Amino acid sequence: MLDRVTAPTPFGRLAEQAAQRERAGLVRTLRPRAADSPLLDLASNDYLGLTRHPEVTEAAAEAARCWGAGATGSRLVTGSTELHAELERELAEFTGFEAALVLSSGYAANLAALTALTARGSLIVSDAGNHASIVDGCRLSRAETAVAAHTDPAAVRKCLDGHAGEALVVSDSVFSVDGDAAPLAELASVVREFGAGLVVDDAHGLGVLGEGGRGALHAAGLAGAADVVATVTLSKSLGSQGGAVLGPAHVIDHLVNAARTFIFDTGLAPAAVGGALAALRLLRREPGRALRAREVASTLHGRLTGAGLVAAVPDAAVVSVQAPTAQAALRWAADCRAAGLGVGCFRPPSVPDGISRLRLTARADLDGTQIAGAVDAIVRTAPAC
Amino acid sequence: MLDRVTAPTPFGRLAEQAAQRERAGLVRTLRPRAADSPLLDLASNDYLGLTRHPEVTEAAAEAARCWGAGATGSRLVTGSTELHAELERELAEFTGFEAALVLSSGYAANLAALTALTARGSLIVSDAGNHASIVDGCRLSRAETAVAAHTDPAAVRKCLDGHAGEALVVSDSVFSVDGDAAPLAELASVVREFGAGLVVDDAHGLGVLGEGGRGALHAAGLAGAADVVATVTLSKSLGSQGGAVLGPAHVIDHLVNAARTFIFDTGLAPAAVGGALAALRLLRREPGRALRAREVASTLHGRLTGAGLVAAVPDAAVVSVQAPTAQAALRWAADCRAAGLGVGCFRPPSVPDGISRLRLTARADLDGTQIAGAVDAIVRTAPAC
Ligand SMILES: Cc1ncc(COP(=O)(O)O)c(C=O)c1O
Ligand SMILES: Cc1ncc(COP(=O)(O)O)c(C=O)c1O
Repeated sequence: MLDRVTAPTPFGRLAEQAAQRERAGLVRTLRPRAADSPLLDLASNDYLGLTRHPEVTEAAAEAARCWGAGATGSRLVTGSTELHAELERELAEFTGFEAALVLSSGYAANLAALTALTARGSLIVSDAGNHASIVDGCRLSRAETAVAAHTDPAAVRKCLDGHAGEALVVSDSVFSVDGDAAPLAELASVVREFGAGLVVDDAHGLGVLGEGGRGALHAAGLAGAADVVATVTLSKSLGSQGGAVLGPAHVIDHLVNAARTFIFDTGLAPAAVGGALAALRLLRREPGRALRAREVASTLHGRLTGAGLVAAVPDAAVVSVQAPTAQAALRWAADCRAAGLGVGCFRPPSVPDGISRLRLTARADLDGTQIAGAVDAIVRTAPAC
Repeated sequence: MLDRVTAPTPFGRLAEQAAQRERAGLVRTLRPRAADSPLLDLASNDYLGLTRHPEVTEAAAEAARCWGAGATGSRLVTGSTELHAELERELAEFTGFEAALVLSSGYAANLAALTALTARGSLIVSDAGNHASIVDGCRLSRAETAVAAHTDPAAVRKCLDGHAGEALVVSDSVFSVDGDAAPLAELASVVREFGAGLVVDDAHGLGVLGEGGRGALHAAGLAGAADVVATVTLSKSLGSQGGAVLGPAHVIDHLVNAARTFIFDTGLAPAAVGGALAALRLLRREPGRALRAREVASTLHGRLTGAGLVAAVPDAAVVSVQAPTAQAALRWAADCRAAGLGVGCFRPPSVPDGISRLRLTARADLDGTQIAGAVDAIVRTAPAC
């Protein structure tokens, strides 16, 4: 046995990777924020501006006091409270699905759905732009995965054609970086030709798309269908933490019995459950918030492209503005920050197409002055193209 | 295209699996609890009885009010608060590691460590009794996995011998179902013969083992070593939700840059961060809680085996009592429940060896009367063997 000091460090390879990242200008560092940060936030996923809404934070606080700081165990042992059941009922009802299952994160919800609803011999057809949690769900499943070109129902059709066994098609409803929407109706139509299932991650659609924010599947008339399952997160429009799977009751029962990231994970903390439930109720009472987020997105897009910047037409509440290089994007985001504006900055390998971008969140609670100030700061600091 | 009503349901296979579970008596159902449930809880993982401690719940509530109900984004974008950084600093200091990284769950922490610290060509040697999240981490990684016999350093040695590239050995410190401990010193010694890394999931050791609950790695003199990484959860002794990876600073920096379940997941909700931090501080102030949990375990074990039941000597705060059959275990747990006592019931496929068990949590805050009542109820309702 070598002693501790002279032993070759098993993590030595990491130093080389760190040096590579440094050279490529791709080092990621954590920048903790203060509670009273003066930045105008256009970088988060708090689409409806609810995460700091007093009704939501008070409900989170009250849930911690009433139920404890943690769920104390797996949902199957001690981790299910009546509050979890209430949230599941109201989420299912709101989105138009028969049943819902709450998990500790949206990430866990995608892993649960993709692993438990497939088996060896299944095929998963996954959009090339899907979120990392879907990609990991595919990898973790026993199924074979075919990656289909981005938002291309014909490509999906080609993948399904010729596969003999069970198949699932999986897609984000709204892609997180660029904010573009999946062609859900066309995907459903292809899926039904083959008797396959459709799994849609509505992380960025819930609260923003559909009547009163009921989500992309509701908008497409697909909510509650026997062959459709949705995953959502409670961490974006609902301002909290956690995820959920929505679908037919027998599918949800199956997940309770088979999904490892549900069975072997501690239940979502009561405060997060209470916060999400309060946000959901607030949204039902004030359905205009969903529309307002889309209007803000449209306004931001119009003004930014009007000023000569390149941005795709937003399908939901994400506005994505192209930058010439990764370095330029980084500098641009830093300059916005110096001007008091927090924006997202996405560079390789987090972008599907190699194009670096600023990502702006069109929060429903931004007022005219804030929008004007944000546009001004972004345009003023834009790199030459 | 078939229309919605006549389309073959793609989830048809699930009905057959549901019927199988029914026949085998292995259906799992959710049983939401009330906030004022009168059950004496010996089923949770609330080892130190902190999840409802007013200091902990108040800190969770205050964090929600001060920071919002959610973290609002990835830790790398908007999801890192100064509270996250504070918890990371204090967790690292307490456990004796150089640095810590907080994730949204212990499950995510294991996925992060195992995927980001290995590469194609790496070997992971994993104990046969490891937690599902470790098994999933191995599957999700690009490494090859060798499963070693349970708590058997010689078996680990055999797996490492002959592998040319990088290798990691991964083990629970305390196995969740049976409560037995891994031979950490022996594992470290084998690992060092080969210049491999050691990853230990201290989910059930933190707060219970080591001086003042500093954990199994601290107890084994391995905390802070260059070749050791720990994962922990904030959802058991710390009464909250979330997970963390602990290790050398350069390893933690690597995870920030490479771990997908960190990068592409919303940060842990402030309330969970605040709750865990308060629990950690309480434990530092009252280090006797750790020892007390072990004493309660020892007392429970002594009295139950004294009454003729079969239970392994507890290495931490889990007491596992064997049942003759899965059905008997289920009935036993139900009878305990009827007698006012909540106990865990583990049956295949959640048990490593096919033996069904009651699982008892030796909570540090149980008093003599509660312990006596619990033992009485368990013995009184025990099935004939
Ligand atoms: C499309 C999509 N799916 C899933 C997730 C994961 O959800 P969560 O962060 O709640 O785990 C995210 C973002 O984090 C996302 O953007
Ligand atoms: C050994 C072990 N590791 C990891 C986990 C996962 O932690 P969490 O529930 O916080 O996700 C658990 C329990 O849930 C566990 O028992």
